[in-house]
Amino acid sequence: MDEKIFLGEDEIPDKWYNIQADLKTPLDPPLNPATLEPAGPDDLKAIFPMELIKQEMSQERYIKVPDEVLDVYRLWRPTPLYRALKLEKALKTPAKIYYKWEGVSPPGSHKPNTAVAQAYYNKQAGIDRLATETGAGQWGSALAFSTSFFDLECTVYMVKISYEQKPYRKILMKEWGADCIASPSNITQAGRSILEKDPESTGSLGIAISEAVEDAATHDNTNYSLGSVLNYVVLHQTIMGLEAKKQFELIDEYPDALYGCVGGGSNFAGGVFPFVGDKITGKKPDLDVVACEPMACPTLTKGLYTYDFGDTARMTPLLKMYTLGHDFVPPPIHAGGLRYHGDSPLVCKLVKDGDIRAQAYYQNEVFEAASMFSKTEGFLLAPETAHCLKAVIDEALRCKESGEEKVLYFLNSGHGHFDLASYDAYHQGKLVDYEYPAELVKQSLANLPDTGGK
Amino acid sequence: MDEKIFLGEDEIPDKWYNIQADLKTPLDPPLNPATLEPAGPDDLKAIFPMELIKQEMSQERYIKVPDEVLDVYRLWRPTPLYRALKLEKALKTPAKIYYKWEGVSPPGSHKPNTAVAQAYYNKQAGIDRLATETGAGQWGSALAFSTSFFDLECTVYMVKISYEQKPYRKILMKEWGADCIASPSNITQAGRSILEKDPESTGSLGIAISEAVEDAATHDNTNYSLGSVLNYVVLHQTIMGLEAKKQFELIDEYPDALYGCVGGGSNFAGGVFPFVGDKITGKKPDLDVVACEPMACPTLTKGLYTYDFGDTARMTPLLKMYTLGHDFVPPPIHAGGLRYHGDSPLVCKLVKDGDIRAQAYYQNEVFEAASMFSKTEGFLLAPETAHCLKAVIDEALRCKESGEEKVLYFLNSGHGHFDLASYDAYHQGKLVDYEYPAELVKQSLANLPDTGGK
Repeated sequence: MDEKIFLGEDEIPDKWYNIQADLKTPLDPPLNPATLEPAGPDDLKAIFPMELIKQEMSQERYIKVPDEVLDVYRLWRPTPLYRALKLEKALKTPAKIYYKWEGVSPPGSHKPNTAVAQAYYNKQAGIDRLATETGAGQWGSALAFSTSFFDLECTVYMVKISYEQKPYRKILMKEWGADCIASPSNITQAGRSILEKDPESTGSLGIAISEAVEDAATHDNTNYSLGSVLNYVVLHQTIMGLEAKKQFELIDEYPDALYGCVGGGSNFAGGVFPFVGDKITGKKPDLDVVACEPMACPTLTKGLYTYDFGDTARMTPLLKMYTLGHDFVPPPIHAGGLRYHGDSPLVCKLVKDGDIRAQAYYQNEVFEAASMFSKTEGFLLAPETAHCLKAVIDEALRCKESGEEKVLYFLNSGHGHFDLASYDAYHQGKLVDYEYPAELVKQSLANLPDTGGK
Repeated sequence: MDEKIFLGEDEIPDKWYNIQADLKTPLDPPLNPATLEPAGPDDLKAIFPMELIKQEMSQERYIKVPDEVLDVYRLWRPTPLYRALKLEKALKTPAKIYYKWEGVSPPGSHKPNTAVAQAYYNKQAGIDRLATETGAGQWGSALAFSTSFFDLECTVYMVKISYEQKPYRKILMKEWGADCIASPSNITQAGRSILEKDPESTGSLGIAISEAVEDAATHDNTNYSLGSVLNYVVLHQTIMGLEAKKQFELIDEYPDALYGCVGGGSNFAGGVFPFVGDKITGKKPDLDVVACEPMACPTLTKGLYTYDFGDTARMTPLLKMYTLGHDFVPPPIHAGGLRYHGDSPLVCKLVKDGDIRAQAYYQNEVFEAASMFSKTEGFLLAPETAHCLKAVIDEALRCKESGEEKVLYFLNSGHGHFDLASYDAYHQGKLVDYEYPAELVKQSLANLPDTGGK
């Protein structure tokens, strides 16, 4: 029995899947941050190229992947779909476990699926430089990698605590030609105003977004690039789920339950939306779709479904989503990529509609799952990814009790080669299982913008 | 045109290739370290299982890969053969550049190809624990990974300076269940005698080998495991070259020139020997086969072809090889895996016979090549591997001048995710181009054992 299901290079899907075409009711529109009125293309064109704005609002079911993007994808795509035979054996489960392995990309995660596309569209629009933010560095290194193929400059605002504690990702960005700046910086007004209040600020993703957006908005030929949350990011990431669907067809299987970790939502959505489309259009009504998040930042399980800003300085358009409040600073869990107060509006709507369910996990149980994986399947997972692995293992053990031969599928979004300090902390028993910070969230939600009932 | 040539899982070769069967004259035998007489199986059985000793001495052309080993190989094998189209384009060369990419294995290098086999044969022989040494940690983590599949304990003596400066590989070994000890340690007589002379010793590969060999020789049910140099290690690594040959057949190509980096010689040999077999048996007499090494440790280009010990404490059998002397401590280049005084006797013999040529490179030109690769092909290479990339780029540029459409192939042995500090030093202009340390080598060669003209 094969453990890896491969596709040929000519089988990389040449269209992305846009789930907006299949939603029962349309998404609520973004709101202009100044007027709080629905934002149109003109509100976004200061920082995004028109092709991406069109994709953000498109209702077309399929959107063509440009040849130039496919050409870069071919460096690592199609990625393998694995059958986790050795994990199944260790669990003694009758369930079949499959995972889509995105760790084979040069930056080591799913992030370049959209970074390459964003670099391409910005280059086409005559842009010379992209500005972005990064937390632990996954997104920043993916954008640095991608801009190097399209001769674009790249400036990355990296959350200062990560900049200082995780030097490897920073060096990787430099190796791919990007300029990496610790945030808050004194380069932007947003950064300076934070530093005036707190010169020792270690930064946050919300602050870094504010800096990158300001950089893009105030410089000619510079645009802003975002690694998750937005509809077009989710769109580009569906390349993973579309490939996985073809791979399941090859072996005549279809998953019963689908799992992914959720920070901003793009890896989860990209891995599962082509299947979720079958659910919401009635072809596969019984699919169980599970979004996995940290207890320390439980946006989908504990957040409020309402309009909120994407950043701390209230510069981004407002999005209708589950949110813990744009002021919320999550406890310092090691899965840095999941420390975001909001989530993709598409994922949030599907959770709200009951098509996707969400579950939250503690750090130690997540690392325990990751450690079982590295001893059975060999690969060392990113702590973010390990959140959905924990859910898969729980379900596989439940199937062992019930005797169900369910087909479980999860999106294995990347390796943990730069997260070994977290594994060390886990083995030393130093990981804190942060409880849901209810009081902090309450304070943060009190600062939500008043959108007059929208 | 496809950039990746894949094989199916059922196309993993089920036999390794033993080049001893095709040598014009047989290898000189190893010598017993005490008597300096030719060593037989009995001299080795205190630290190796009989199946591996048989493979070490076998003259059979093909040796079956056990099913249990193939089962673990399937986690990442067959590995892709890449056509480096984007590198070719950047070089504007008419040469075709192919590389075999071993960075997809869980430990990130070619090392598990033999580590899995060694773990298997030792388990079959009733062994409970393996002891080994590691420099920067590639080999130690590969053996830790491999022993986890066969329920063996694993003790790794890691050169102290790496143990302290490169904590990530150490944590990775622990994650896979191994015990990692800084060498010199006070656990072994070999370690204690070094520490008595120099309590601040930062260790060396030669010392760490002495400790691991002593550990194995003095404990029941414990064997020693070596990650390179020996004939059976080279044998296991030929899985790479055999796959590559099938992949070239699929696209109806055959390389004109073959490149690999050489530390102990196993990745080079494993990648090229199935082709070299065609050269020495007359099928492809014109093949250009190039072994690439560092100027700071130029074993093949500057060493003496004679019998020497593999370790500092003179505990291992003597091997006939190019050597810089077992006392030689190379300058601290970042390609830690190439800092070894000797080389595989098989590789050395073929260099001596003129079937393989060797070239030495400086650090900065090697990192310059690696940096060009990450900006074109995307992948960040290990500094060791980058040595042969430098040779390939030089040849591709020569082909540009001459207009030759040569087919170049190199063994891309692993990623550099744990070597980013070296890249940082390169970008900061802090890398030293160590000259050949002629005086040190002269002193070291003066301490060669007197084998009476053998």
